[in-house]
Amino acid sequence: MQHDKKGNIFIISAASGTGKTTLVSRLLHNHADLRVSVSHTTRAPREGEQNGVHYHFVSKEAFETLIGQNAFLEHADVFGNYYGTSFQGVESLINQGLDVILEIDVQGAEQVRRALPQACSIFILPPSFEILAGRLKGRATDSEKVINTRLAKARHEIEQAAHFDYIVVNDDLAQAEADLLHIIRASRLKKTAQQGFLANLLENS
Amino acid sequence: MQHDKKGNIFIISAASGTGKTTLVSRLLHNHADLRVSVSHTTRAPREGEQNGVHYHFVSKEAFETLIGQNAFLEHADVFGNYYGTSFQGVESLINQGLDVILEIDVQGAEQVRRALPQACSIFILPPSFEILAGRLKGRATDSEKVINTRLAKARHEIEQAAHFDYIVVNDDLAQAEADLLHIIRASRLKKTAQQGFLANLLENS
Repeated sequence: MQHDKKGNIFIISAASGTGKTTLVSRLLHNHADLRVSVSHTTRAPREGEQNGVHYHFVSKEAFETLIGQNAFLEHADVFGNYYGTSFQGVESLINQGLDVILEIDVQGAEQVRRALPQACSIFILPPSFEILAGRLKGRATDSEKVINTRLAKARHEIEQAAHFDYIVVNDDLAQAEADLLHIIRASRLKKTAQQGFLANLLENS
Repeated sequence: MQHDKKGNIFIISAASGTGKTTLVSRLLHNHADLRVSVSHTTRAPREGEQNGVHYHFVSKEAFETLIGQNAFLEHADVFGNYYGTSFQGVESLINQGLDVILEIDVQGAEQVRRALPQACSIFILPPSFEILAGRLKGRATDSEKVINTRLAKARHEIEQAAHFDYIVVNDDLAQAEADLLHIIRASRLKKTAQQGFLANLLENS
């Protein structure tokens, strides 16, 4: 079914340890008109993962065929496994009038921004590097060397924030969720999104 | 005092009878960090109006001197009285970190958009022309001819909505207020508004 108003596409990226996944889960839980796109992957399903829900699990050959068909908004090879976001999956959701969140890394975000300039991109920042370091230390039993490598990678990712449309600081989780919602709701009110209503109003005057 | 983060400027326009003034009053009442700019006028104060609160009341000569100094973001001559929005008044508020609402007509909005391309412009629409006609009839004892003239003017103003950044439909007052707030809050999260935070974060990493 073609909905009378298309949904919008939101790219959400962050450095590891910033709380992006928790934030997006809360948003989805609290707002039924928001969806995440289901990625394709060639890795094996883990226990409890369902095909079409957590991922579209496909063979390497099938994935490469899709690459050849330009079916992906973005894709990457991570330690020998492919991961990708299909254009068709996203399009089908926005055609139902749903807003779609792509929760992807900064490299994927760059690919999607190029493929879909109309997508709205949001970067989530930690309140400070001290707090980010604390979070990375708190959740792992890794050595200081491993944590320092992660922090250096985080710094590199955070530098990419300057290329995003919006920046949300995840200091307080509820506030950051409210901020994301402001951005998502405001997108529906953009003149470009309201042109159909305006035209209809003027036609019936 | 120079605040560490400047406020944003919002132009809010609507056709007469759309409920703009009620909406803006509610927003200001519920959010202490939002302000309206106080206009200058050459008309005489009405009972209860205070200088510097409702308007800056000035003489015609003083107003024309200000015009000569390019002091106004927009100004108009309405039935022999000048009305205008001074740049200085708006600047002093945004320098305190406050978001400033300019509640102005479509002609004024066009002038401000030219003077301040960074200002965010919002047009408020009625849900339908029928409802707008009902509101115009409901509040006046005017003749049908007068009401029809007003509706024709409203239609002309609504055609200008296409030049605004955002469009809010005032069907339900609470929803329209929430929509305005989404737009206002999202503006504070734009990359351009967050650059100071990002630079500071990277400096202290």
